[in-house]
Amino acid sequence: MNYARYLSRAAGTMEESPIRKMGMVTARVPDLISFALGYPSPDTFPWDDFREITHELLGARDGTTLQYGPTRGFKPLLEAVRGVLRGRGIDAAMDDLLITTGSQQGLDLVGRVLLDPGDVALVELPAYTGAIAAFRNVQAELAGVHQESDGIDLDDLDRVIARVRAQGKRVRFLYVVPNFQNPTGLLLAREKRRRLLEAARRHDILIIEDDPYGDLYFTDTSDPSDTRPIKADDREGRVVYLSSFSKTMAPGYRVAWVAAPAALAAKFEVAKQAADICTGALDQRVIWQAIERGVLAAQGPRLRAVYQHKRTVMERALRQHLGDVVTWPEPRGGFFVWVTAPPTVDAEALLERAMQHRVIFVVGNAFHVDGSGANTLRLSFSAPTPDRIEEGVQRLSLALREELGHDPQEVGVAGAGGGTRGAGRPTG
Amino acid sequence: MNYARYLSRAAGTMEESPIRKMGMVTARVPDLISFALGYPSPDTFPWDDFREITHELLGARDGTTLQYGPTRGFKPLLEAVRGVLRGRGIDAAMDDLLITTGSQQGLDLVGRVLLDPGDVALVELPAYTGAIAAFRNVQAELAGVHQESDGIDLDDLDRVIARVRAQGKRVRFLYVVPNFQNPTGLLLAREKRRRLLEAARRHDILIIEDDPYGDLYFTDTSDPSDTRPIKADDREGRVVYLSSFSKTMAPGYRVAWVAAPAALAAKFEVAKQAADICTGALDQRVIWQAIERGVLAAQGPRLRAVYQHKRTVMERALRQHLGDVVTWPEPRGGFFVWVTAPPTVDAEALLERAMQHRVIFVVGNAFHVDGSGANTLRLSFSAPTPDRIEEGVQRLSLALREELGHDPQEVGVAGAGGGTRGAGRPTG
Repeated sequence: MNYARYLSRAAGTMEESPIRKMGMVTARVPDLISFALGYPSPDTFPWDDFREITHELLGARDGTTLQYGPTRGFKPLLEAVRGVLRGRGIDAAMDDLLITTGSQQGLDLVGRVLLDPGDVALVELPAYTGAIAAFRNVQAELAGVHQESDGIDLDDLDRVIARVRAQGKRVRFLYVVPNFQNPTGLLLAREKRRRLLEAARRHDILIIEDDPYGDLYFTDTSDPSDTRPIKADDREGRVVYLSSFSKTMAPGYRVAWVAAPAALAAKFEVAKQAADICTGALDQRVIWQAIERGVLAAQGPRLRAVYQHKRTVMERALRQHLGDVVTWPEPRGGFFVWVTAPPTVDAEALLERAMQHRVIFVVGNAFHVDGSGANTLRLSFSAPTPDRIEEGVQRLSLALREELGHDPQEVGVAGAGGGTRGAGRPTG
Repeated sequence: MNYARYLSRAAGTMEESPIRKMGMVTARVPDLISFALGYPSPDTFPWDDFREITHELLGARDGTTLQYGPTRGFKPLLEAVRGVLRGRGIDAAMDDLLITTGSQQGLDLVGRVLLDPGDVALVELPAYTGAIAAFRNVQAELAGVHQESDGIDLDDLDRVIARVRAQGKRVRFLYVVPNFQNPTGLLLAREKRRRLLEAARRHDILIIEDDPYGDLYFTDTSDPSDTRPIKADDREGRVVYLSSFSKTMAPGYRVAWVAAPAALAAKFEVAKQAADICTGALDQRVIWQAIERGVLAAQGPRLRAVYQHKRTVMERALRQHLGDVVTWPEPRGGFFVWVTAPPTVDAEALLERAMQHRVIFVVGNAFHVDGSGANTLRLSFSAPTPDRIEEGVQRLSLALREELGHDPQEVGVAGAGGGTRGAGRPTG
């Protein structure tokens, strides 16, 4: 049977996630080093705390622990989330909050509640593929806004909105990841956060602020005041804020949340009822108890140290092995290094070659809604050990030099190991 | 700020689940007996097995246990699901399967992959509200097909399809719950299952078969051969089959699955990537181990005995306290008794009065996509203890008699405790 005639238009245009696709590769190739998946490092998971908490919860045999629960979320967890938000400068009422089954569900609900087919969602260039997919799956159009070394280009935002509206299209919101953006690792400047709120008011759009990495700032280059959410200064109710415990606790518990103006949170709740009824009751209680017992608080310094070290190892290896041919903005937190290769390099071809060397990454093109970024790649340093990061960059260097060697225009430069490429610091 | 102008058309028409709304009531009123929520009985959860399994899983510290995982699901669980399906007569390949975050997610994916705005999904009259919401949320229209005492009326199916097509609308599928349907408890006759497949071929539509209750047949009135899924005889690939561990294990683990033609399963997978990336890794492993260790197999007889007894208690109480005024089809499995009150009774008004008597149910109207069913109600006997079921039916009887007493036309009949209403057996 041919099923094409049964598919919705949305299904007809759905595309497999380029990151998920890499996950399948990882599973198949032995001794593969993956810089593709933005997975947290499993040795940071508080295994013993989770085990103790779960043992107690299941031992108590409170029926609600394994039952369906309220769609909004488990109330004590919602209260705990309010506390987490207060620590980030956000004063959220209970009516503003919704627990989601991972932040991806938050993005999905945002798309469904705020976008009609043909509407335009603004995203950064480049932007997180999971958000792109969620918005495209409701048949929205995406328009990209350029980024500078300190985050989104506000002049370009004005231009893009003007252009889209001149086409008679409706702009509903701008989606941004201000803290250590996925995929670039960029940190949005404090001053720009304030101006972004003004721009949202001026243009009458909402801001969808996605903040999975805010706690993971690197103390050698940034501090908590740099990561203050836009939502913290949102007096008007223009910001829908998403965050998650996947990076600070463990993604195996699918627990994240949305903080939004109450009228929107109510709509997200109704949409979630039909999406999965409720987030797992046990998962929510484990996370709640981990917050109550101080596990989350203890995770912060530990995670920052672990990922900062991995970032240092990756940058050092990149400077040593590839500093003559690629550039990247220094990550001041988070999981990612965003690499720009010489313009002649096609990251898709490089990936093919890199796989032969048993190292993978995500092609940068996948993050660009305008089709650009062919010579860019996202390297995630979060999951591999420091040794594997070092080894993986060496393998990537071999692959890239082979790739450059196959391009007649680049043979000389690459072969000489010199050239005029940047020294590993961002140029913008 | 007024957010109405930011909402999608879908969000504008989304309605809160009538069942979920009842959940909020339950939480607020003390000593309330709820026949509203179709929750499994928490004393049937295999607490000790779950505790032991989880303790071992978290003790082993395998990183993948708390990590993101494949969107399709954890492979050993998928293999175990194949075994479960074989036990139901369904021979599914790995490519046919997808683990979902509860069956509600399966319904949501079905809606998104198979329905465009304005398309028509066929559902039973009455039908499960969660399916209605999932299909409405993608802006589909719903057309209801009548049921007889042995399930869907196939002649009415022909008529409805003809009528919808005459209106120039596209019919994509029929959604059915053949085993102990939610909300009526009806069991679709074996012969009708075969004819339904023929009808689907003749009309060139798909069948969405939702089977959460198939294992919960009552041995005094049915046997496993009565519950053989339609999918088991689907030679052509017309059936998308959904089932879940929420009723046989515990809904706190959000683990369910879809078995579909591989081409559709692939689309569901891509849609799920953007919906929540993956179902919880730990949840999947706990369920997998519970299957491996024989816990699921042991649950079957235990659950059948528990729910059969509760059914007996509820039917006995209904006959005793309300046999003169209401009718219901005898449930041969599952969680529900579907009650028809005298035609003058408005279940919404009855619910108001019942709440004063501290008993609640779901109004039958909520399950009818054609606006009918005003005098019907769904009573769930799954969660309350036998004593509370008995007590709840007494309270309901008081409420209904008061309600009838307030209706001048019914005073005589109700007051005399007699009348010509059925003796509690289905009339069709």
